[in-house]
This record gives sequence, C-alpha cells and structure tokens, in this order.
Amino acid sequence: MAHLLLVGTGLIGGSFALAARRAGLFERVTGYDRDPAVIRRALELGIVNDSLPGLTVPLGGVDAVAIAVDPRSVADTLVTLLGAGLNAEVPTFDVASVKAPVIAALQNRLGRLPSGFVPCHPMVGAERRGPAAASADLFAGGRVFLTPVPETSDSAVQRITAWWRACGAEVSLTAADIHDARVAATSHLPHLVAFACLRRLADVWDDDLTCFAGPGLRDFSRIAASDPALWRQIFEANAERVGDELAGVIREAERFLGLIRDGRFDALQAELDVAQATRRRLFPTDGAENDD
Amino acid sequence: MAHLLLVGTGLIGGSFALAARRAGLFERVTGYDRDPAVIRRALELGIVNDSLPGLTVPLGGVDAVAIAVDPRSVADTLVTLLGAGLNAEVPTFDVASVKAPVIAALQNRLGRLPSGFVPCHPMVGAERRGPAAASADLFAGGRVFLTPVPETSDSAVQRITAWWRACGAEVSLTAADIHDARVAATSHLPHLVAFACLRRLADVWDDDLTCFAGPGLRDFSRIAASDPALWRQIFEANAERVGDELAGVIREAERFLGLIRDGRFDALQAELDVAQATRRRLFPTDGAENDD
Repeated sequence: MAHLLLVGTGLIGGSFALAARRAGLFERVTGYDRDPAVIRRALELGIVNDSLPGLTVPLGGVDAVAIAVDPRSVADTLVTLLGAGLNAEVPTFDVASVKAPVIAALQNRLGRLPSGFVPCHPMVGAERRGPAAASADLFAGGRVFLTPVPETSDSAVQRITAWWRACGAEVSLTAADIHDARVAATSHLPHLVAFACLRRLADVWDDDLTCFAGPGLRDFSRIAASDPALWRQIFEANAERVGDELAGVIREAERFLGLIRDGRFDALQAELDVAQATRRRLFPTDGAENDD
Repeated sequence: MAHLLLVGTGLIGGSFALAARRAGLFERVTGYDRDPAVIRRALELGIVNDSLPGLTVPLGGVDAVAIAVDPRSVADTLVTLLGAGLNAEVPTFDVASVKAPVIAALQNRLGRLPSGFVPCHPMVGAERRGPAAASADLFAGGRVFLTPVPETSDSAVQRITAWWRACGAEVSLTAADIHDARVAATSHLPHLVAFACLRRLADVWDDDLTCFAGPGLRDFSRIAASDPALWRQIFEANAERVGDELAGVIREAERFLGLIRDGRFDALQAELDVAQATRRRLFPTDGAENDD
C-alpha cells in the first residue's frame, strides 16, 4: 500500500495530497504539521488519513515524503526525519521557492544530500493559505521545477516527475542556481514591487481610495496578499539576487520618472512599447488581442 | 426612436453600445471611427447599425453621444460635433481615464462646457483592444466615475448615470481633481510600475525566462499588455501626479532595498505586513483566505 508522509499540511502540501490521491498515487497519507490547528483541519477535511504526533517517532513503511514547509525549515525537517529512521533512498521532495539555499543548508548539515531527495518548486499562485484553501486542481496547468544535485538518484527524479505530472503540472529540470536567478526576476521581483506599491498606498491612504481600486490594481496586487512571513524568508534566502533585481527596476523607474518630468513622452512611449512587447513574449496567448 | 451616436467604436465604445442596446436604451447606434478598419469591423459585428462618413456632416435626431476616443482627442471631437450642429443639451459623455485635462481643454476651446456633457471614466480592464474584444458584459460589476462641472445639467447627469447602471456598473460622482489624484495612485502608478518591471525583464531577457513566468507574474503584468500609445497619453495628461506617485514608490523600493542589503529582514517583514494589510483593505473579499 503506497504510503505518503506529508509534513506541512497547508495550501501546497494539502493540495499535493488531494491531487496525488485523486490520481491514485497513494492510498494512505499520514500528515504532520507543527501547528496543531492546521493538522486538525487537514484531518477534518480528509486531506490526510492520520497524523504523526511528532517527527521524531520512528518511521516505517513510508514510500514517499513531501516536505511542504517554509524554506527555512526544510533542512531541519529532513534531518529530523532521517534521524527518525527515514531511508535516504525514499523519494522525498520539498516545495520551497528558493532552491540553492535549501541545498546548501542540507549539505552543511549532512555533507551530501540523501539520494532520494529531489528539490522541487511548484510555481503556483499561493496568496491563499491553509488546508481549507487546498485543492486537487492547484497544480493543473502549472509548472514544477526540479533541481536535482549530482548525488540525487535518477529513480527518485523519475518517480517525483511522474507524481507532479499526474497532478497536472509540467515538469522542468534545471540547476538550482539558474532557477534562483530566474525566479528572482520573474517571481520575487514582482512580489517585492507589488508589496512596495501597496506600502506606498498605505502612506497616501484615504478611505475613498477603495472606490478607485479597479480590476487593474486587483490583479497587479494579488501577489501582495501573500503571506509576509513566507515572503520575508524567500527574500532573505535569495537576498543578493532579489536586491540586484530590485535595484534594476528602481533604475528603470527612475529613467521613466526622468522622462515624465522632462516631458519626453515620445521616449517614454518607446520604453512602454518594449515593456509591452516583453509582456507578450512572456504570455503570448494572454491579453494580446488587438484591433482586427 | 432613441438614437446613439458612438464616436470611437473600439473596446470601450463598442462595449457600451452592446451593453446599452442589450439593456434596451437605444434602438439605433450610429458609429464613427477615424480608423476605417475599426468602423468596418464594428459594422460587421453588429455593434453599430450604420456609420457616419465624417464628423462634420450635419447631425440631426441624435439623442445621446458617447465619445470613446483617446484622452487627447476628446475636446477636438466634441468641438467638431458641436460645429456640425450637435445640440449642447444632448447627453454626451467621454470615457477618458484622466478628467481634469479633458475639462480644461474644453474650457479652453469653448469657454464653458456644453450643459449635456458629463465627463466619465469607466474603470474597467482594457488591456484588450478593438471592436472584436467588445462585450456587453465589460461594465458589469465595474465602476464608472462621473465628474460633472457646475454648468453640467442635472438631467444629463441623471440620464447618463442611469445608462451606466443599466450596463451593470456602479456610478460614483466626484470632482475631476480628486478623481485624477486618486487614479494616479490606484491605476496610473500600477500601470507605470508594471511597465517598468517588464522593461527590466527585457534587459535581462533570456528565452528560458518564459518557463519561469508563472501565474503571479501573469496577473501582476496583465496591465503591461495595455496599449502604450493610450497609456503614454494618460501619463502625459496626469504627468505631475503620476510623477509624484512614481517618486513615492521609488522611495519605498529604495527603503526595501536598503533593508535587504543591510540584512534587516524583521524590519522588511514589518513593511510587508503593512502592504498586505493595505491590499486586504482595498480588496476585502479577494484572496484573503488564511489558515482556519
């Protein structure tokens, strides 16, 4: 009987359990969450079949481990599980949005990574939280990055790839450093900028501002509804790259501001043209309708 | 027979015609667009019943006028229509995203505004363009700002309010200056920042970046798919306020960058908390789920 141990039964972990069970990957899901309210809710919702009282209890008969905890807690969690008897060859993955620091923390603690451990990052919208928001459809049409290291076993990569695909996601293999550099630009930067814009709106707050908040701002700022405690960890883990990206966008914004203040709107429009074209290259099928 | 003259038969104008006709407000819609391809498409799609060869032909029997052209062309269009015999009391509105410059341009040309003219701004997502994108549902659940001036007749305000409500929108009356200041913060700023972030991505472009573009970036940057020629006009028309808002967000971003580079992540998280709380105040029903 295929048995999944799920550590962290919130949105991402809960959604993996639901999607994987719907796909027939596991018959039994045992959950653990350090927050008693979260594991209780996951049990009530049927996301997990049973729960562990703690992570130091001896583990036996586990066929797979999903570690869906915050980035800073991944290494501790995996080290604890290995200490409790988890076989290093059991396919195991995390879901942190930054990969190189997770790998470095594990190398620091263990010397080498367990051969069954495959660092993963499912890139899905997660401004909601908790088991009640979990959905078997969360990964459908999404993408999951796998950043294995040389000691990772091929069979673990293959099995975990198959699981994510069964959950409806596309899977991309890449190096952790490349992953972290790219997501600094495509994910961490937009989050930071959306937070900065909302921080600005707090400074100019007036209650009637809510009337003037339309669909453009709603979509633009959806990611600023994300959990500050989680994003603080992500920004901290990827601080150098995130800082460089933010500095880069500040330079662009200052250039735009100079053009506006100098009344150089033809030049500004040329910049907007490049930006719009880039948006269309990134999302060719989305919002690209034009006069026909 | 109620007869609407629609000048500008693109997304916004076409959607108003479709929504208003569905609501039974007009039996006949006569269209004009300076782009022959756009008016031809609007005719083919049945958005307008017939078309004017030009705006200087004598106008008779028009009960309402919608001027859905770019902000810079509103005053010219209305002055031309009045010259062609449009009665100044006929309920007439524009849809420009900036109101005070439209009003000032008309005051400059006409001394006082026609009593039937009600400056309007439907705040709806418009990153699509053209008559083919027009929809009778575009305004449903949206909001339209009306910024009448002292000489605007109450009956024009009442009739145009009723039309927008019949199209499914909420209507808010406000002063043009207040409108322009608020939308600088809630609409023009996010557009400018989204353009700046996409301009940054153009600088660090690598073809595999598309793989790393997830749902967060998609929603955040949807407004950067908007028409650069239109947005250049909006930024130009509201330049001082837009510049001040952009300067404000640059200061916030620099503060965030300083905290990141100094490793002060507790302080950064406190800023993210304020930003997230502000997002939730703006959109209380949206993406606010939490652990339960």
